[in-house]
Amino acid sequence: MVQRIRSALGGGFEALGLRDDAAVLAVPGTASPLVASVDSVVEGVHFDLALSSVTDVGWKALMSALSDLAAMGASPLGALVALCVPDLVVGADTAVGVMEGVAEAAAAAGCPVAGGDVSESDALVVSVTVLGTVASGAPVARSGASAGDVLFVTGACGGSAAGLRQLRSGPGVGVVENVRRHRRPVARLAEGRLAQAQGAHAMIDVSDGLALDLHRLADASGIGFALDAVPVAEGASLEEALGGGEDYELLMAVGAEGAEALASAFEVAGLAAPLRIGVAGATAATRTLEGRPLGRLGWQHGGDHPTG
Amino acid sequence: MVQRIRSALGGGFEALGLRDDAAVLAVPGTASPLVASVDSVVEGVHFDLALSSVTDVGWKALMSALSDLAAMGASPLGALVALCVPDLVVGADTAVGVMEGVAEAAAAAGCPVAGGDVSESDALVVSVTVLGTVASGAPVARSGASAGDVLFVTGACGGSAAGLRQLRSGPGVGVVENVRRHRRPVARLAEGRLAQAQGAHAMIDVSDGLALDLHRLADASGIGFALDAVPVAEGASLEEALGGGEDYELLMAVGAEGAEALASAFEVAGLAAPLRIGVAGATAATRTLEGRPLGRLGWQHGGDHPTG
Repeated sequence: MVQRIRSALGGGFEALGLRDDAAVLAVPGTASPLVASVDSVVEGVHFDLALSSVTDVGWKALMSALSDLAAMGASPLGALVALCVPDLVVGADTAVGVMEGVAEAAAAAGCPVAGGDVSESDALVVSVTVLGTVASGAPVARSGASAGDVLFVTGACGGSAAGLRQLRSGPGVGVVENVRRHRRPVARLAEGRLAQAQGAHAMIDVSDGLALDLHRLADASGIGFALDAVPVAEGASLEEALGGGEDYELLMAVGAEGAEALASAFEVAGLAAPLRIGVAGATAATRTLEGRPLGRLGWQHGGDHPTG
Repeated sequence: MVQRIRSALGGGFEALGLRDDAAVLAVPGTASPLVASVDSVVEGVHFDLALSSVTDVGWKALMSALSDLAAMGASPLGALVALCVPDLVVGADTAVGVMEGVAEAAAAAGCPVAGGDVSESDALVVSVTVLGTVASGAPVARSGASAGDVLFVTGACGGSAAGLRQLRSGPGVGVVENVRRHRRPVARLAEGRLAQAQGAHAMIDVSDGLALDLHRLADASGIGFALDAVPVAEGASLEEALGGGEDYELLMAVGAEGAEALASAFEVAGLAAPLRIGVAGATAATRTLEGRPLGRLGWQHGGDHPTG
């Protein structure tokens, strides 16, 4: 479907969640382009109000949108929030709760909420548009990786999926930190900015699963990859780390000569060291974990079906 | 509810469909601010697929968002579209149809669609974010009108409401042009730009009804008004012109000394002459049409109730 929509829109529609995490718009009279992204979360599809509060939903809606800016190396200018609630009178508490969560995340990320819109709808839908810029140079695309690049991830994966599993299993099960990762993820804005400033070749955020998002980066760049390690969050399984999604860690391809400098820059900035997971290869068809083919594990959108 | 949401968000949330048509964001390193607005349209609330095609829905969703830019005097840089469709497989034709309408409106308005997102949801929801800038000077707010200003509207009102009434009455009834106005409204971008360049004091677009939107401009500016004429679209009633909404004409307050120059500038640009409807008054409580108090006729959002 996404291909049909792109074809309906002609060449103008460059960023429907596939090509890059965010759209890049030139602004007349300025050198630095605008980076913009929109994401919707829908009750029953993206969240379950039995497992997360409406405030958590608002937090996560803004952070997942900001994660797209992080993956371009952009800093947020502001956000706009379009809220659909089932009933404007009965749903007032819901709307206010969601916006409180948005406000908490906005304060944490330094992203003012500049505008919004509230409508009635059958389902609770939160659509967040975020706008940002890069300080200098170009935003980082998915497509810039080349053979020999070192692949890093900013943190262990699978925590969010493990947290969701724990919530479904009932109270007291598993690692508390993973429940927080599921309900209150944090966009890696500082890490993304630093990687952009250090000349990272390509980035993507881990929203649908480390394996699937790495395949997408590899597709866009025309490369293969050989992973030798996958950092798994405590309490999570390898499958959750590869296919769980919603970790919002950043996956980075960095030139081999710049890998050391990136790690140093992270250390100087007080950020956790990026975790080396493997290297990019020249043969696009060769994509492995510890020597074995790695499938496209993860959450597929838009009528695509998992092939992994 | 909107007040509670604004209070949850503190001072940062300046443009929740009330204060101005669009948010204004400063961009570091540039003099000209970014103008941004988001609008959602929801099946069963804002449109009826028995009366409009999905392509019409897409057209109108983009144009109504662009109308918010027009009301600030801004030119569009681009749009992002978040689409929620009831089923990603069955709904694929719907999604493509909506995006074709968006693409047609985007081409007509010169606003590239730069990004988007497609999700599943119980209801069809189209959320459009538009971004724009003004060539020089500041965007036009709702709040700048003062006593003695001349009030103009860019065209006759009520056509969209009359068109909706005609569609509900069945085929062959009424003025065909009004059906087009209902299904395929046009944002007054050129008119808004010109009014901004000519120093219009305040603007708002007629989205919820000429009377209600004029009251909003008057509230924001702390003025009253005396209308001596309301231009009614052919086939529409006076009530439809005052309270029908969705005309997307611009309502402008212009200094008395600049009114002549505005009309000339419109003529030179080949635009239809702005229609003088009255003047702004110093007493905020005095708001009249032909000497009689004019109520807040129009479509009220967010749990407010009509008082007119």
